[in-house]
Amino acid sequence: MRGAVIHAPGDVRLETLDDPKILKPTDAVIRTAVTCVCGSDLWPWRGLDTTDEAHPMGHEYIGFVEEVGAEVTALKPGQFVVGSFATSDNTCANCLGGFQSSCLSREFMSTCQAEYVRIPNAQGTLVATDEVPGEELWPGLLAVSDVMGTGWYAADAAQVKPGSTAVVVGDGAVGLCAVIAAKEMGAERIIVMSRHETRQKLALEFGATDIVTERGDEGVARIKDLTGGIGADSVLECVGTAQSMRQAMHSARPGGNVGFVGVPHDVAVDGEELFYSHVGLRGGPAPVRRYLPDLIDRVLSGQINPSKVFDLTLPLEHVAEGYQAMDERRAIKTLLKP
Amino acid sequence: MRGAVIHAPGDVRLETLDDPKILKPTDAVIRTAVTCVCGSDLWPWRGLDTTDEAHPMGHEYIGFVEEVGAEVTALKPGQFVVGSFATSDNTCANCLGGFQSSCLSREFMSTCQAEYVRIPNAQGTLVATDEVPGEELWPGLLAVSDVMGTGWYAADAAQVKPGSTAVVVGDGAVGLCAVIAAKEMGAERIIVMSRHETRQKLALEFGATDIVTERGDEGVARIKDLTGGIGADSVLECVGTAQSMRQAMHSARPGGNVGFVGVPHDVAVDGEELFYSHVGLRGGPAPVRRYLPDLIDRVLSGQINPSKVFDLTLPLEHVAEGYQAMDERRAIKTLLKP
Repeated sequence: MRGAVIHAPGDVRLETLDDPKILKPTDAVIRTAVTCVCGSDLWPWRGLDTTDEAHPMGHEYIGFVEEVGAEVTALKPGQFVVGSFATSDNTCANCLGGFQSSCLSREFMSTCQAEYVRIPNAQGTLVATDEVPGEELWPGLLAVSDVMGTGWYAADAAQVKPGSTAVVVGDGAVGLCAVIAAKEMGAERIIVMSRHETRQKLALEFGATDIVTERGDEGVARIKDLTGGIGADSVLECVGTAQSMRQAMHSARPGGNVGFVGVPHDVAVDGEELFYSHVGLRGGPAPVRRYLPDLIDRVLSGQINPSKVFDLTLPLEHVAEGYQAMDERRAIKTLLKP
Repeated sequence: MRGAVIHAPGDVRLETLDDPKILKPTDAVIRTAVTCVCGSDLWPWRGLDTTDEAHPMGHEYIGFVEEVGAEVTALKPGQFVVGSFATSDNTCANCLGGFQSSCLSREFMSTCQAEYVRIPNAQGTLVATDEVPGEELWPGLLAVSDVMGTGWYAADAAQVKPGSTAVVVGDGAVGLCAVIAAKEMGAERIIVMSRHETRQKLALEFGATDIVTERGDEGVARIKDLTGGIGADSVLECVGTAQSMRQAMHSARPGGNVGFVGVPHDVAVDGEELFYSHVGLRGGPAPVRRYLPDLIDRVLSGQINPSKVFDLTLPLEHVAEGYQAMDERRAIKTLLKP
């Protein structure tokens, strides 16, 4: 089969690889319907995460069950399934506590920009739809497997409530999906920090009520202006830099909450500052599995349409261009068709 | 009047000071019924907080209203009142949000180890009892004004729920009151980290179910042993050092919560570590005013008895001995009688 492999910063190639096989009785192999490039894939592409040796890429996928291991009793070949970047048995204490992305058997997916993918912990990870959805619904379901699930967790961790004010830091695909989530959870005011016109438009279409283009202390001052001098009830941090995290914490009101889903790079939170802020913090890789049934329903019923974050669609063989377009911010997110 | 003044580390003296006066129409002056020494008073006593010049000490108080400013309409001389170390107007957005210790008019109390005390924002800060409580109830009510209110906030911020498992890090007066709070909020298992026999006994009397004497990684390993390998639902951090904070974060399960009320000294939280832990963090100076009516009722009805944290009672003139006994851990907390 063919799959994407990164060799060095800026060097991703589609290569012929061994077909994935069932390695454990809890595995499944799926034939990829569509996959995509994630903002976090840009870290190694940009050389900000070190890559010692060539390795496959990709952790977002939907597809058709091809083969299942002996212990995978609830799935059968031919079913259409949605998964998550973090696999989970959905039976351990952490899964039962709703944090499947801390599953005791967790494996992070990393080979999904390919025609076929092996899914560990398949029974706990994959959610099958009743029927095979029309192709027009695939991008939305693909978004659910990562960016939409992650945006949802940001809003959940930031405790967005009906009538509240939410700030979204970051206008990438996750930030834009976080706007959808905040809106669905009933936020009355949704302020998005963005300097990019295309993304601002999509944010407004998704339900944002205000756009703030300032950054750093000026950005925080604008948020305070818009929130009676106090700060927002909920802040959804969707970037992961020291600057964005500081901006998020300073934008929340005392008693407010920051949900942070951007993987932190060189972020240290000062204990005394957090203390006196009275702000609550929770982050982490999103427990997408917890939200899958609900989010799949919302996409299938047309209640939400996160597919709009995909503004570039390419055949899998053009995967490198998919990375490059996102790196240069020509595309928000690239969909790849095997 | 007489009041305690710190001149240098280890040097606290009772001196004759000017009687406090009404400075603003929102002030009141109270005659102190009883006051006490706080664990946080030991930071300057030990020279760990720098003291540039001599200044008064103390932020815990209950007493009798002596005089009120023109705008203090709900209080009258002779009333018995309980306050908090952080004053609040109880009308601003932060107060209405339940975080009175972030009141926009907040002033921290700092002159309470004295016969008389000026209370800023008196109307929003002081809660009067219906009658003057018997003297035997004063220590419990004094505890409510700080350590009991702070322990309650630790449990609240750590989201202690009925049937849950709570860990209390720290066996000082706040930690011991946090045990009371966790028990009142329905925690089924309350694990206290303590190496001090007297405090262990009091913790067990207050409702602790397990004592862990190990610290650092060994302490965390013991907590994991006691919680099915996962960690606790709620961790109440009542110390404020880098070590205690690390211990608290590592003792919580993914999806669990740490409420931290020890004022952090040289604490930095690693963003990536917090991210992958899935642990929620909230800290800060306790919004005691939010809890006062409820906690006063619990003390007056005998539902809780936090007065037991006072294991040394001294006349105000022996204030220095009160500090020293706590510094040497001969006393958990010193009550001072003017």
